[in-house]
Amino acid sequence: MASFLVNGWPAQSVDTADRGLAYGDGVFRTLLVREGRALNWARHHRLLERDCRMVGIAPPDPAIVLDEIRRLAPANATVKVIVTRGSSGRGYAYPEDLAPTRIVVAYASIPVDPEPARDGIGARRCDLVLGEQPRLAGVKSLNRLENVLARAEWRDPAIREGFICDAAGRVIEGTMSNVFIAKAGAVATPALTRCGVVGAQRERVRDLLAAQGIACAERDVPFAELAEADEIFITNSVIGIWPVVRLGAWTGAPGPLARLIQRLVAADDAAAA
Amino acid sequence: MASFLVNGWPAQSVDTADRGLAYGDGVFRTLLVREGRALNWARHHRLLERDCRMVGIAPPDPAIVLDEIRRLAPANATVKVIVTRGSSGRGYAYPEDLAPTRIVVAYASIPVDPEPARDGIGARRCDLVLGEQPRLAGVKSLNRLENVLARAEWRDPAIREGFICDAAGRVIEGTMSNVFIAKAGAVATPALTRCGVVGAQRERVRDLLAAQGIACAERDVPFAELAEADEIFITNSVIGIWPVVRLGAWTGAPGPLARLIQRLVAADDAAAA
Repeated sequence: MASFLVNGWPAQSVDTADRGLAYGDGVFRTLLVREGRALNWARHHRLLERDCRMVGIAPPDPAIVLDEIRRLAPANATVKVIVTRGSSGRGYAYPEDLAPTRIVVAYASIPVDPEPARDGIGARRCDLVLGEQPRLAGVKSLNRLENVLARAEWRDPAIREGFICDAAGRVIEGTMSNVFIAKAGAVATPALTRCGVVGAQRERVRDLLAAQGIACAERDVPFAELAEADEIFITNSVIGIWPVVRLGAWTGAPGPLARLIQRLVAADDAAAA
Repeated sequence: MASFLVNGWPAQSVDTADRGLAYGDGVFRTLLVREGRALNWARHHRLLERDCRMVGIAPPDPAIVLDEIRRLAPANATVKVIVTRGSSGRGYAYPEDLAPTRIVVAYASIPVDPEPARDGIGARRCDLVLGEQPRLAGVKSLNRLENVLARAEWRDPAIREGFICDAAGRVIEGTMSNVFIAKAGAVATPALTRCGVVGAQRERVRDLLAAQGIACAERDVPFAELAEADEIFITNSVIGIWPVVRLGAWTGAPGPLARLIQRLVAADDAAAA
């Protein structure tokens, strides 16, 4: 079950003329609310604001968004915040004074399955190759058809995530997650300057590692490099940190870095109380 | 003013959980209705069906869509047909039995300004570079943020269209149109195998030219080639055929090929009565 606020008003529906529907003309972020607290909120809002500016939409007031999140999710929920350019007539051009549409959605929390975080997951390499669009690189826009098509490549429930590469064979992200690898103590996450989505959890993991004196390189990561990794793990704001233990012929085990990050993220969530 | 049918029912709004809004997970086509007739309908429906299959959505029954178009637009209108994957919970994965959402929108006809078709238009080259995604090349998906950003590059009303290129400098399309060029009797339109949208008007123009014994090459067209063209014109289903008479330093005049195509399209529309 989900509940919605559209521009602050309870609603089950949005204007059919909204440009979010017409063109995917908007951005969104997804976060967890626990005991009424929006976890990792500062990074979520900073990225939402950055994404809005990247596509030329006036960002919403963070105090209003946070208030709406609290109204919809007084206890525990997964919350999605969508900002579209607003409703307009037909055509790609839009009036300069268009009022953005702000949608907050709260999904009832489902019990967390501890297994993937504890035991790790199986993953695959997707056939779909991400297009490069530096103008939208990092942005979590409503143009997510590539992710939908990549995720539709498999239905085997033993595979929990698919890794997507660019045309040069660089791994960019998972369909719903960001990717980290470790090799001989060196940590890296793919650079997201050509395509891909910068997740708030990714940014937090990098910050938490930095606070521990562990450098995490943002760089090109050829897919072949994953086969040489000591550890691979994926992150997003809903799943947290999942070690990858099978990826094609590669097998591994949840490693010390993933365990460290899991503890640091849990402590960071607790500290925000 | 616009009127809407959502799955056959009059509605001003769509489910907030629709994947068209969440991910741009759908496709659309825009066409003209004149005196109750959906112009170029066979090609529009064929492309809508092709696009649905390209993204794995069950295409709607064309008889139902046509009936809905007639209900909304008994006389003259611009009509948009949107098909989304339907409403679902959060996440890129979707159930196999998801029922698509069918949205038909009729916009009241506005009086046609004869000037651009008659005198030609000024155009520009957009700064935005199209990303390459062969899996979606040609598809008119709801992921149109590139077109929105390209169209937002200018507000000068003397510029009626922007040409968009790929990273290799090949012209692909206009923000809202397809492009044709002629040089020494040879006609060409950009190949849309890496990116771009295949318009129903583009397909009709190619068919009408072929019926006249005029070959139209579908091939890579470096932007620089436009400066050498005898004629440039753009097409879409709403504007018809607009000659381009200014593009950067290049100037031209409405040429015999554009005039021929304008006559052939008008005759084709009349013949469908």
